[in-house]
Order: sequence, then structure tokens, then C-alpha cells
Amino acid sequence: MTLTGKMLIGQQLICGNREAIRAINPATNAALEPAYLGGDGEYVAQACALAWTAFDPYRETSLEARATFLESIASHIEALGDELIERAIAETGLPPARIQGERGRTCGQLRTFARTVRAGEWLDVRVDTAQPQRQPLPRPDLRQRHIALGPVAVFGASNFPLAFSVAGGDTASALAAGCPVVVKAHGAHPGTSELVGRAMAQAVKACGLPEGVFSLLYGSGREVGIALVTDPRIKAVGFTGSRSGGIALTQAAQARPEPIPVYAEMSSINPVYLFPAALAARSEALAQGFVSSLTQGAGQFCTNPGLVIGVQGPDLDRFIRRAADLLPNCAAQTMLTPGISSAYDSGVGALTEHANLAATGLAANGPNQGQAHLFVTQASDFLANEHLQAEVFGAASLIVACASHEEVRQVSEHLEGQLTATLHLDENDLPSAKALLPVLERKAGRLLVNGWPTGVEVCEAMVHGGPYPATSDSRSTSVGTAAIQRFLRPVCYQDFPDALLPGALQHGNPLLLRRLLDGQREA
Amino acid sequence: MTLTGKMLIGQQLICGNREAIRAINPATNAALEPAYLGGDGEYVAQACALAWTAFDPYRETSLEARATFLESIASHIEALGDELIERAIAETGLPPARIQGERGRTCGQLRTFARTVRAGEWLDVRVDTAQPQRQPLPRPDLRQRHIALGPVAVFGASNFPLAFSVAGGDTASALAAGCPVVVKAHGAHPGTSELVGRAMAQAVKACGLPEGVFSLLYGSGREVGIALVTDPRIKAVGFTGSRSGGIALTQAAQARPEPIPVYAEMSSINPVYLFPAALAARSEALAQGFVSSLTQGAGQFCTNPGLVIGVQGPDLDRFIRRAADLLPNCAAQTMLTPGISSAYDSGVGALTEHANLAATGLAANGPNQGQAHLFVTQASDFLANEHLQAEVFGAASLIVACASHEEVRQVSEHLEGQLTATLHLDENDLPSAKALLPVLERKAGRLLVNGWPTGVEVCEAMVHGGPYPATSDSRSTSVGTAAIQRFLRPVCYQDFPDALLPGALQHGNPLLLRRLLDGQREA
Repeated sequence: MTLTGKMLIGQQLICGNREAIRAINPATNAALEPAYLGGDGEYVAQACALAWTAFDPYRETSLEARATFLESIASHIEALGDELIERAIAETGLPPARIQGERGRTCGQLRTFARTVRAGEWLDVRVDTAQPQRQPLPRPDLRQRHIALGPVAVFGASNFPLAFSVAGGDTASALAAGCPVVVKAHGAHPGTSELVGRAMAQAVKACGLPEGVFSLLYGSGREVGIALVTDPRIKAVGFTGSRSGGIALTQAAQARPEPIPVYAEMSSINPVYLFPAALAARSEALAQGFVSSLTQGAGQFCTNPGLVIGVQGPDLDRFIRRAADLLPNCAAQTMLTPGISSAYDSGVGALTEHANLAATGLAANGPNQGQAHLFVTQASDFLANEHLQAEVFGAASLIVACASHEEVRQVSEHLEGQLTATLHLDENDLPSAKALLPVLERKAGRLLVNGWPTGVEVCEAMVHGGPYPATSDSRSTSVGTAAIQRFLRPVCYQDFPDALLPGALQHGNPLLLRRLLDGQREA
Repeated sequence: MTLTGKMLIGQQLICGNREAIRAINPATNAALEPAYLGGDGEYVAQACALAWTAFDPYRETSLEARATFLESIASHIEALGDELIERAIAETGLPPARIQGERGRTCGQLRTFARTVRAGEWLDVRVDTAQPQRQPLPRPDLRQRHIALGPVAVFGASNFPLAFSVAGGDTASALAAGCPVVVKAHGAHPGTSELVGRAMAQAVKACGLPEGVFSLLYGSGREVGIALVTDPRIKAVGFTGSRSGGIALTQAAQARPEPIPVYAEMSSINPVYLFPAALAARSEALAQGFVSSLTQGAGQFCTNPGLVIGVQGPDLDRFIRRAADLLPNCAAQTMLTPGISSAYDSGVGALTEHANLAATGLAANGPNQGQAHLFVTQASDFLANEHLQAEVFGAASLIVACASHEEVRQVSEHLEGQLTATLHLDENDLPSAKALLPVLERKAGRLLVNGWPTGVEVCEAMVHGGPYPATSDSRSTSVGTAAIQRFLRPVCYQDFPDALLPGALQHGNPLLLRRLLDGQREA
């Protein structure tokens, strides 16, 4: 497939009219062809108009048709073959195995949502049958289902060019819910975006769906991004990226005449707690696991362990020493973009100013490489200095040494909202872990014991979300099947004749759903 | 029980320090004793501090303990006896049967939420068991439940002094979810609020719960209301009232360093569609039903039918004539407050300016009485004039005569978000109703056939919500058991030992919940 450098508005490949974006190979700083001309508000309006036209028919497609569409997207992505892998590697500097794995995750995610769509639990069907004899007033027949919110704007992330991008989790869950999607491609991987976008457009066509179900735009966040979020036909937003980007989109969405929900996944430093018994028993193994999680993928994960918390003493010292011994063997790794690389250097600079440097990884020996950094500070300093809580996107982490369990608790209460919190503990740590748990439940969306936060399983129980500013909306997850709920709203039908009811609510239950019938769950 | 005029901060009756609020009997304009001195930010901070202290223990109460608490509130409200009924009548001008019915609804609602709490479906327990042998990576054990968001601020509504006030739907659903509640009493019924508030405080004590689970404040919206919504310990807001009030609270909540969700139910004109066959068959009966729904309770319902839409012709004319014949027999009714009464008069004035007056009810013969008004306009005028879509709270309605089905559709697309939309139809209307349905699903939270929108059942399937500006968050309902979901967020536990897991997630399923286990719903 020859890359065209064009946007996809429905089935049409259309050339933009604004400044050209060219991907940069971060490993070489070479610009990659073709140029992707950005769009302006006019293209946004076209894509939204198509999405709006597609909305009513698409949201009433059968569960089977919609599931088949999601599976078809997966197959079309797989059919791109090595071209997709090679382009993604060139645009991101990520290693082949990682991109291959990510393709598997992306397609697996689409197929998981297909199963979710077919199972139909997301419709949350509730039926309260009529009670015509009830006193003092009869009860009408009331039936509830969930319907799609409307067209959704999706902003791809830089660090997962497949799994959190054009056909990533936001897109998959919005399509599963019955929402057309307009994606603004991330400027760091436009070619990867075009390949995946064209696979999606092929799936739309193969499934006979209205073309407006999917469009793909290029352009600046300030112009195309804001135009998209403020278009009246867009009814929700999915975003993964920086805190400033997420806040800008959220504010634009709230300033609309009709405000809309924004699901922005923004920033997290993912505290890791080292409890005393665990630290005494295996500080060296913990240090090894930590350094490995910290440096994985150049630390470019939202769940990267950017903060380690423990009670000071010889065991914590041993952990720090071991981590500081290991880090100098860790190679600098090419980061995703020149911008991310320089932001990392600034973040490291700020930490250097406010905390004590414990160790660094090997120095960079090529462009845009991130050198791992480990810092140490006292809890009292951490509590006094907001800079130490800022996310530094990359392989940098800060160890906070606390004087006591009580100070561990203070540091925890002082934390902003997080995607994850990790507890390393042994049997003897259970009482103090239990005491800290209520704080952590209030602070994070996912809590882990004796693992590392990097690695986010796509499944039913996953929560990739958390209190502000980890996300803009803690009531949801952006990974896992529950992500579909972000794009739905309930509608109640009162005394409707069967002929007018959607299939999910008809008296004969033709979709064989497990409804909540007069307060009882059907078997 | 002697009314004290005091706020309730936990178990303490505390006198405010700001301007006194006195209820007005709207039937006589007489001020009622005692005076309720408003609080300031200091009292808000005290109540929020107590709520925060109560939060962790309260959210982990057993399902049984929490359900018993809700039932205890209902019993304590019933034990107030006639004193509550009499005070509510004096403060609102509503008739005794209505207040008695509303007490029944309020207590029934608390008991319904008790059943919901016990059933435990709201926990949405999902378990994905470990797959240690999986390739290329093992799957950890992942378990999800929902936990309470945090202390909730509730703003009582004027028009339901019991069911949407101190112990109303917002409070009941927040307590059911595990959230402590701080209520700002509505200034129109402070005595009713004190009585119910003290019943609630008694229930808190009787159930041995931390006192901060419930507080009740008086004061101005601008001072106490904003202080409450911006207190960092408040994590969500429930509000029923005006659009301007809802927007002010929403903006304050979004401007916080940590923005929080606001569930504001604000304004709706509840379009009623008269389809041709139904109109031909029974225009007179429809007119009778309409006038009765319009004038019920002086029209002071969020679901009052403020808009009627039909295709012009002799049948619609007959409907209008019949309604215009009936209206002059409808007595003017005492409205809830002098403020609501004068706002109604202004709203009627605006409609008089922009539409044609078809009929009025009997003129007022006492203070604060609302005279019913019926207006007629052409669809083209309705489409051209935004004033005609403004909610007029009271017994005023506007009939929009459309030239064609296509114009009915245009008018429908032009509507703002609504709580309800009602379709009066016969067999022969089904095709045109079906064609309009997608528009109505996008516009309203509840759709009714051959009924009237006033009357909102408390049940599983109810949706009392809808797209903006009907509510600030269309993804939810403020009536019915699904309202509990507004105050919850998911938390995932990865590889937790049983000793550290909450009961709902333990391996042995001690709460006997119907979990989603490895993608399959347990029986």
C-alpha cells in the first residue's frame, strides 16, 4: 500500500491545506516521506457531518453486525503485514518485537470488544412490567436500555502507535458502543495512522456500513483538535497524552453551549510501596524488578514506576544501592520523538534541582536517547515541594525515604490521583498494608501486590483510570471491556408497543439478554 | 419535636452566623418561625471535615448495615408523623394528600435503595483469574469492584420538599453508594428540612455510624453553596433546580484544582407529540388529559408538558379548542414561593410577547397563585425564536402547529435536550412515530407512548435525566435505582492475597455475588 499523505474523510482520501507534518525517525532524526498536510476546520466539519449522518443507522446495527465489523478491522490490520510493522518502527524507534506485540494487543482488543458487543450486557436492559391494578396509581410498563452518545473524537497517543492510537482502545470501545469515530492522528506517527486508518475504512466498506462511521484527520491540536472537540456533532472525547493537552481539550469541551464528556488519560507517577518485611527479605530482587520496570520501553509508559516509597533504614539503603548499581548498566534508549526526548531532559533537570541524584544509566550515544535517572529524597522534602510530584515521562524515578509508617501515610495522602499504586509486601506487612489500603483506593484506579505497574491487561476487570489528574473522569477505564460504558447513556421507554420497541427491549426478549426483570436478574 | 432553627453538623445542632432565612407560607405570605440563620464557609468546612472522617469507615460498612441504615432513615421520617406533613404544607402550599404521597414515595425510595444495596449488583464485580502459563506473558489475577466517590454535596429542590430534598433521591442514592452526604437545605422549606434532617441524624446514631455521614446546612447559594462545591473533600454534587443554578455549580466544580462531577437536573419542556390518527380518533380526550397533566400541582414539575407538537389541520384545531374550553375552568393554584410565582409571571409574559395566547385558567384570588396559560404558535416561528424554548416553570404550555411531518422533524431536531418526550399515537401512526424515534432518543431520557410525562416511577428502569440542558450529565438518572451509579468509581486489585481483598472480591465469594468470572456471568 503506497502511503498517500492524505486524510480519510469517510471513504475519501483528501489532501489537507495546512502546514505539512512529516514523521521523524527518532533513531536518526531523518524526516520520513510522505508529507501529511494538516486540515483546517472545514475538513473537521466534513468529517463530523458524515459521522452525524452515520450515527443513527450505525447505533442501531445488530450486535452481530457490529461485532463482525470490529473483527473485520482486526483482520484488515493484520493484512497490512510487515509494512505496518516497519513503518511503526521507523516512526517511533520502538523495537520490532514491541510493535508486533502491540499489533497483537490491538487486534486482540478489537476482538475482545466484539465479544462484549455480542454478549450485550452493556445494554443494561431493565424491565419493570406494568401493574395496572396497583393502588393508589397503576404502574406503567418501563424499559431501559443504553444507547450510544453520538460521534466520538479520538486523539491518538504517541507512545502506543497502535494500541492507543487510530484503532486503539478508545476507538474500539466507542465503535463497540455504537458511536462513529473521528480520529485526530498523532503527528508522531502519521504513516502508521494512515495504514491503520485505511484498513479501518476498508472494514467499513466490507461491512456495508455508512462511510461516516470512521474518519481520520491530520493537523495541529490547536486548530483541528479544538475544532473537533467543539463541533456540535461530537458528543464525547477520548484522549491519551499530556496533562496540559488533556486540560485544554476538557476546557474546550466544557465551554461548548452543550458541554460533553472528555475521557482524558493524562499523568501518573505510579507510587510503589516497599513494605519492611518484603524489603528485609528481598531488597535486591526488588531493586532488579524495579529497574527493569523503570527502564522498559525507555520508561515511556503511563504506568511507569516514577515514585518509590519506603521507610528509611538499612533495608531501604540496600535497595537503593542495588538499584544504583544496576542502573549504570542500562543502555540509553531512543525515545519516541525529539519533543519527548527534550521534555524528558527538562524533567530530569527539575528533579536534579530538587532531589539527590542516586544513579544514572549509560549516556546517550545517538539522537533522542533517554538516559535513565534515579533520585532520592526525604519525605519531608517531598511533602514540601510540589515539583517532586510532576510526571517525568521516561525512565526517571524518585525514591522517597520516610521516617515512619505515619510518614508513609502522609506522603500517600499528599499524592495526586494515580493510575496505579503498587505494594510490595510479605505476610508480616499485611497489617500495615491493610491500614494504608483505604488511602490507596482513594488515590488510584488499580492496586497491585508484588508486581510492577507496567503491563496493562485487556480484560473485564482492568481499570486503567483513576482520580484526577491521572484522568479527567475517575468513573471510567480506558482499557478493558468496561471502557464501552464511557460512550453510553440510558434511555427509558414507557408503555411502548412492541412494534415501536428496539429489539433489546421487546416483550419476547428476542436477543435473549439477561435482563433485570422486575428487580430480579434473569438466568 | 420543637424546631430549633439550627443546622446539623454531624450530631450537633449549631446556630448559624449569617442572615436569617424564614420560610414563607405562600398561601398567606406569612413568615414562619423559627428563623434559620445561614452558615458561612467555616460551617461548611466543619461539615466537610466530619464527612471526610466518616468516608473510609462508612464506605466499607457491610451491605446489610448500609441497607438497614437506609431503612432506619425511612422509619425515623415516618415517626415524625403529622408534624412533618403540617410543616411541609405550611412551607410549600402543597395540598395534604400530595405531601402524604410524597412522604410515602420518599420512604419507599429509601427502602428501594436498601434492596439495591443488599443485592450488590452495583459493585459490578469482575474477576479475571490468573493464567500463570499463558504465553508470551502470564496473566495476573485481576479483580474489580466499584467504590464510593467520596462525600457528596446535595442541593434540595423546592418543588419536592421531601422526595427531592434532604432525604430525597440524591441523598438516598449517595448514601447507598457509600458516600457521606452534606445537604444544603432549600431556603423555601427550612422547617421541613430540619425535621427530616433530625430524623436522619437519629438514624445515623441508632445505626452506630460515624456522625459525619450526614450534615445539614442553611445559607445562601452563593456563599454556602459555592463553599460546599469547592471544598476539596467533596467529590460529587447532586442538584435539582434552575438552569442558572445548575450551571453556576457546574462551573464552580470544574474550576476546582480537582474538578468533580455535578449531576444537575436543570430544565425541560417535555415535548408531547400528537400524531394524526390519534388526534383524529380522540382529540377531545387528549385535550382533557393534557390540561389535567399541565395544571397538576400548579404545573410545578420538571416533567410538566410545556410543549405540544402536531400537524396543523382540523383535528389539531379541535384539540386546541377543547383545551382552550377546559382551561378557563382550572383554578389558579398557590405556587411554592413568591419567587417562583413571580418568575412564572415573567415567563408567561415572555410567551405572550412571542406567541398567541389561546386560553387562560381562572385568575388568581390569593397571593402567589399561578394562572394557567396556553399559547399557540407556528413551527416556523418556533424555529426562528429561541425564547419559545425557554422553560416556564408552572402551568404554561405552547402548542406548535407544523405544516407537515417534515416540519415536525425539524422542530424536533431543533429542540434542546429534554427529560421526556411523549408520543400520542394509534396503530396507523406507527410508521411516522418509528421514523421520528431516533431523533427523540437523541433528545430525551424517557420516551412515553399514550401517557403523560408527569409522574416519575421509582424503579429499576426509570431514567429521569437526559441530554444537556435537561441535565448536566446525560449518562445518568436521578430517579430510580440506577442513580446509585453516579457516585461510584471502579477500582482494580491485581494479584491481591485474600487477606487484603475486600469481601466482595475474595476468592470464596463470601457475599454470594453474581460476578463476571472470566467473562462469564455467574448464575
